Amino acid sequence: MQTVDLARFVVETPDDAVPLEALQRARDAVIDTIGCAISGAAEQPALIARRYVQSIKAAANTVVWGSALRTAPAEAAFVNAISGHALDFDDSLPSLRGHPSVPLCAAGLAAAPQALSGRAFLSAFVLGLEVAGKLGRALGHGHYMRGWHITATVGTFSATCMTGRLMSLDEGQLRNALGIAAAETAGLVRNFGTMAKSFQAGHAARSGYIASWLAREGFTGDDNILDRPGGLIAAYGDEHSTLNVPPFADPWEIFEPGIYVKRWPCCYGNHRGLAGVFELVQKHGIEASDIVEINVGFLPDADKALIHRNPQTGLEAKFSIEYCAAAAVIDGRVTLDSFAEAAVHRPQVRALMEKVRRVPMPGQGSFSGVVGYTDVEIVTHGGRFSTRIEHTPGSPEAPMTASDRRDKFLGCTQSVLGTDRAERLLSALEGLIGAADLREIIELIVPAQEGAVA
Amino acid sequence: MQTVDLARFVVETPDDAVPLEALQRARDAVIDTIGCAISGAAEQPALIARRYVQSIKAAANTVVWGSALRTAPAEAAFVNAISGHALDFDDSLPSLRGHPSVPLCAAGLAAAPQALSGRAFLSAFVLGLEVAGKLGRALGHGHYMRGWHITATVGTFSATCMTGRLMSLDEGQLRNALGIAAAETAGLVRNFGTMAKSFQAGHAARSGYIASWLAREGFTGDDNILDRPGGLIAAYGDEHSTLNVPPFADPWEIFEPGIYVKRWPCCYGNHRGLAGVFELVQKHGIEASDIVEINVGFLPDADKALIHRNPQTGLEAKFSIEYCAAAAVIDGRVTLDSFAEAAVHRPQVRALMEKVRRVPMPGQGSFSGVVGYTDVEIVTHGGRFSTRIEHTPGSPEAPMTASDRRDKFLGCTQSVLGTDRAERLLSALEGLIGAADLREIIELIVPAQEGAVA
Repeated sequence: MQTVDLARFVVETPDDAVPLEALQRARDAVIDTIGCAISGAAEQPALIARRYVQSIKAAANTVVWGSALRTAPAEAAFVNAISGHALDFDDSLPSLRGHPSVPLCAAGLAAAPQALSGRAFLSAFVLGLEVAGKLGRALGHGHYMRGWHITATVGTFSATCMTGRLMSLDEGQLRNALGIAAAETAGLVRNFGTMAKSFQAGHAARSGYIASWLAREGFTGDDNILDRPGGLIAAYGDEHSTLNVPPFADPWEIFEPGIYVKRWPCCYGNHRGLAGVFELVQKHGIEASDIVEINVGFLPDADKALIHRNPQTGLEAKFSIEYCAAAAVIDGRVTLDSFAEAAVHRPQVRALMEKVRRVPMPGQGSFSGVVGYTDVEIVTHGGRFSTRIEHTPGSPEAPMTASDRRDKFLGCTQSVLGTDRAERLLSALEGLIGAADLREIIELIVPAQEGAVA
Repeated sequence: MQTVDLARFVVETPDDAVPLEALQRARDAVIDTIGCAISGAAEQPALIARRYVQSIKAAANTVVWGSALRTAPAEAAFVNAISGHALDFDDSLPSLRGHPSVPLCAAGLAAAPQALSGRAFLSAFVLGLEVAGKLGRALGHGHYMRGWHITATVGTFSATCMTGRLMSLDEGQLRNALGIAAAETAGLVRNFGTMAKSFQAGHAARSGYIASWLAREGFTGDDNILDRPGGLIAAYGDEHSTLNVPPFADPWEIFEPGIYVKRWPCCYGNHRGLAGVFELVQKHGIEASDIVEINVGFLPDADKALIHRNPQTGLEAKFSIEYCAAAAVIDGRVTLDSFAEAAVHRPQVRALMEKVRRVPMPGQGSFSGVVGYTDVEIVTHGGRFSTRIEHTPGSPEAPMTASDRRDKFLGCTQSVLGTDRAERLLSALEGLIGAADLREIIELIVPAQEGAVA
C-alpha cells in the first residue's frame, strides 16, 4: 500500500462497490457512536471544549451533538469527537488497536452536505474504517508500545479520507491532504485517564477536516507521506512497521476483524476480565466479603492501556482493572455511574481493589482488550473459582444483541434528548441506508429547543 | 529537568529576573519575526489559511498580521505563524535545530492582553525561547534525524509556555497544558518544500494557545508528560534523548547559543554555502559561463534539511543547495524574487545546477545549517578557488548589522504596509522594552484600512 494506492482507493471506489452488509454494520457503528457521544456531551471534557468553541463564536452552520450549540464544521468535529470518546464507551477495531468510529463520525458528519444520501455517507464511513484498519496493520504493535494513541494518530488519517471523499477531493488533492494530516498527527497513551485522551480524538477529527478543506483549496503537503524514509510509517512506527499489508477490501476491515462494541463504559482492556468476574460471581453466588483474591490474567501487552492501578478520578478508573473488577463485584454491574468520582473513592471498593492482582499469562505476540483471551480466578474463603473468557464481549464472536444495542443507545441518549426524541433519532439512524439525505438525523441529534442545554 | 521544574520556571520567574540584554535580543527577534510574517502574509499558504479562517467567521478580536482580517486568538496564532514561516526567512536557534520565534510570537501576541507591558511580553518570549532550547537539547539530534520538524514539535511546547504565562496559569494548570500540548505535537521534515511546512508552525502556535486556554478552564492532561516511559521524550526521542540538560537560564539560551538571523529567504542549510559562493564569485570575478563545478562541503547531517536536489517549485527550491548556489551565481543575490516559480525554471539556472555537487566532509557529531562550517570550491576553466566559511551568516559570530536588520524589516514590510506605516511599526517595535502596552504595535501590524488586503 503506497500513498497513491490509498488515495485512489478512497477517491475512486464507487458507493455501490460497498456491500450492503458492510453498510449495515457501518450503520450500527454510527448508532453506537452517536449514542456514546450524546451521553458524553455532558462530561467535563466536552463541556470545557464547548466553552472554548463558544468563545470563538464561529459560524453556526453545524450542530454540536447533544447540545444547543451550533458552530463551524471543524469546531463541531472537535467537540463531537471529544463527546464521543469522553466516556470511553465507543467501539474498537482490533486491527487498529483503537477506536475507529468516533473520528470518522465526528469529522464525517461535519463535512457531509445535508443533502448527502445515507448510503453515500455510510460508504465513506466504510472506506474510512478500511483505511483505519490498514494503517493500523501497517504501523503495527510497536506504534502503540512506543506510546502512541492510535485512535488519534491513525484517526487523523481515516478522518482525512472520509472528509476528503465527502468533499469530493481528487486523488492529487487527497494525497496532499494526507501530507497535511501528517503535520497534525498526535496523541499519547500517557494521556489516558485524563481529559486529554478524548481531546486526542477531537484533535484527530478536527485535523482530518482541516487537512481536507485546505487541500481542496490548493494547500500542499508531501504527496507520498506514508511511504519512503521520514514518512508517517518511518516516523511513527518501528522496525516492524510495513506498508506491505493485505489489499483494501479483501476482506473489508468491517468484516474481518469487524467492529467490537463496548458493553461497559471503560477501557476495552477491562472487558474480558469483567465478563469473567460477572460470570463467576453470578454462577457461584460470591459475596465481596468472601473474597481473598481476584486474579485477572493478561497475555503479553494486554493490560498496556490499563495504566492506572490506584485511580483517583473516574477517568483514571476507566483504565484500571483493579477498580473495574472491584466495582463489578460490589455493584453487580458497571455503568456510567460507576465512574463518578465519589464512586471511585468508596472504602468498600478500595478495600476490594487491594485484592485484585494482575497475573501475567504466557503467549506469543502482542495482545489487547480486543485480541486474545483472559483467565479470571476468584479465591474465596470457601473455594477457588476460575474461568477463561475466550471471546471479547461485543466482538463478532460474542456480539451484543439488537436489544442490547437498543438499550445502550437509549440509555445513553434519553436523559439528554428525552425519550421520544431519542427513539425518533434511533429510528432515523436505523433507516440510514435508505435515507435520501441527512437532514432528519442532523435535526434530531440535538435536544429540542425547549430543553436545550449549551 | 522534569515537567514540574519546567512549569515552575515558566510560572515563577519574575519579569525582572530576565536581564536587559536578553530583552534587547528578544526585541530584535520579534522585529525580525514580524517582518518575515508581514511579507509572508502574501504567500499562498497564508492566503489559503486566511480563506479557511474567513470561512469559520470567528469573533474578530485579534489581528491577522499583514491583512485586514480579524479573528479569534487561536485562529490568528495559526495564520500568523504560517505567514511567519512561509518564506523560510525566520530565525533559528542551534540548540533547537529549528526556528524558535515564529510559534512564540504568533501564539504570544494572540494570547497577550493588549494592556500587557512590552517588558512582560518580552520576558515571556525569553522564557519560551529558553524552553525551546532546553527541550531541543533534551530530544537531541535523533529527533530530527527520525524525521521530526522540531520547529513545530518543540514549538508547540514553547508556545504553550509563553501563552500559559501570559494567561497567568498556575504551575498545576501549566503542567496539564503541557500534557494537552503533547496531544497535538506534530510535524515532519518530509513536508519541507510544501505548504505543510509553514502549516506545521501554524499548527504549533495554535496548539499552544488551545492547550493553555483549555488548561486554564480546568481541562486535564498528563501532568508529567516530559518525563517517564511513554512521555514526550520517550515517544519523540531516541535512545540518546535525556532530560539531563543544562539548568534553565544558566546561561540563557538567548545568549548561548543565541538566535541566528537569516540573511536570505531560504533554508539555513544553504546559508554558509551561499556565503562561500558569494565570496568566491566577488573576489575572483567568476562568471557563470566559466564554471565547471561548484562543490559545497557538508559535515555529517548538515544537508539533512535540504531535501530537494531537483526542485520544481519556489518552496522546494528553498531546500535545495543546487538551486540556491546556481541562482546566487546567476543573479548575484538571493532575494524573495529568487523563489518565484518562474525563477526556478530558468534554463540558465537549471544548466548551472547540474554543476553543483554536495561533498561530504568528515566530522564527529551532527551538524546543521547553524552548527559547523562549510567548505566551498568553485572550479572554472581558468582555475580552482576555495574558501571555508567558519561562521554562519547572521550568527552571533557573524551578526547582521543594525542597518542589515532594518533593511530586512523594511524590505519585508514596505510593500504591504506602505513605507510610512512600516517605519512607524519598526520604531514602535524598537521601543518595545519600554512600552506601557501593546496597543500601538497591534494597530500598526496590519495595513491601514484604506489599503487593506484580506
